[in-house]
Amino acid sequence: MKRGLFITIEGGEGVGKSTNIEFIKATLEAQGIQCIVTREPGGTPLAEEIREVLIKNRDEQVVTETELLLMFAARAQHLHQKILPALEAGTWVISDRFTDATYAYQSGGRGVSSEKVALLENFVQGEVRPDLTLLLDAPIEVGMARAKSRGKLDRFEEEASEFFNNVRNNYLNRAKAEPDRFKIIDATQTLALVQTDISQALANN
Amino acid sequence: MKRGLFITIEGGEGVGKSTNIEFIKATLEAQGIQCIVTREPGGTPLAEEIREVLIKNRDEQVVTETELLLMFAARAQHLHQKILPALEAGTWVISDRFTDATYAYQSGGRGVSSEKVALLENFVQGEVRPDLTLLLDAPIEVGMARAKSRGKLDRFEEEASEFFNNVRNNYLNRAKAEPDRFKIIDATQTLALVQTDISQALANN
Repeated sequence: MKRGLFITIEGGEGVGKSTNIEFIKATLEAQGIQCIVTREPGGTPLAEEIREVLIKNRDEQVVTETELLLMFAARAQHLHQKILPALEAGTWVISDRFTDATYAYQSGGRGVSSEKVALLENFVQGEVRPDLTLLLDAPIEVGMARAKSRGKLDRFEEEASEFFNNVRNNYLNRAKAEPDRFKIIDATQTLALVQTDISQALANN
Repeated sequence: MKRGLFITIEGGEGVGKSTNIEFIKATLEAQGIQCIVTREPGGTPLAEEIREVLIKNRDEQVVTETELLLMFAARAQHLHQKILPALEAGTWVISDRFTDATYAYQSGGRGVSSEKVALLENFVQGEVRPDLTLLLDAPIEVGMARAKSRGKLDRFEEEASEFFNNVRNNYLNRAKAEPDRFKIIDATQTLALVQTDISQALANN
């Protein structure tokens, strides 16, 4: 049985991840590839409970290490209960965000050292990394306008624009540092052009 | 302002932690010492939410790393939002369990390597350790009979007796390895004798 590929979709708020994940799934299935779509934080009932704890608006200040450990707790569950069993069964996994988002949000956004993120990444994942990561990139004004139009913002979406600029820059720096794994997609293009780029990235993999 | 002392109470199920914590608080207050009682996992609203996620009985298998990361996520929140601010204000903190319980349950009980626990202990706590740890020790049959008499068991209390024997042995080994910090209290004695031992341990500190 050939191991499935692990594809992650990254990017800030409102860059079109959900729409394009559906497109990726349809594209792969049209080629006869079995795949599942999942998301982080979340992906299993327990990991979704941790997601709720993470994103809920609350009065209590959330310690940055607490947030980071909760992210990786959800990831450990998701990885071992859902992602790895699927990949081992030959199914491709398409995840709406993964560890690159932790670097972008907790390190880029919140200022946690990237060494701390790397320590937990190795702790939880060992050698496991995505095979292909599509970064949907857009200036933050574009994404935030879309996110706001969807309704009430969660604890992350309520951050200031400096936070999101730091998230975006962290994503872009990571993509440039790992050009073999990452494909940067210009999410300000028309949907047709975005999907042409995505199709090409999938074909090259 | 003199820093408060950080006292932790450890032990398996049903060894009398709650009763004796109240005794410790009353003893300290009678000496004019300001103190707070708290517990792990928990101690803040967010950490208590994490506790609920941890102890809930569920069909989904809980990955050992997930459990360990959730424990330390709750601890990071508890430590930085409650324990350290109290100690710095000169208040003594009495905690119903702390990191020794993670070694006992997750490493001793579940078999996670103690190196993994130590890695997260250093990650979350830096140099912070309890000043005094009282280990209430009893054969597991004694404790489990008391725990069962209290009603429905949670996800941890439902483990088999081998699990609890491993927890107890891990606690005892840790106590023997750190005799300056730990005081082992024989919890099979009468309550009066247990509290004589506790009073002596407090007086010696």
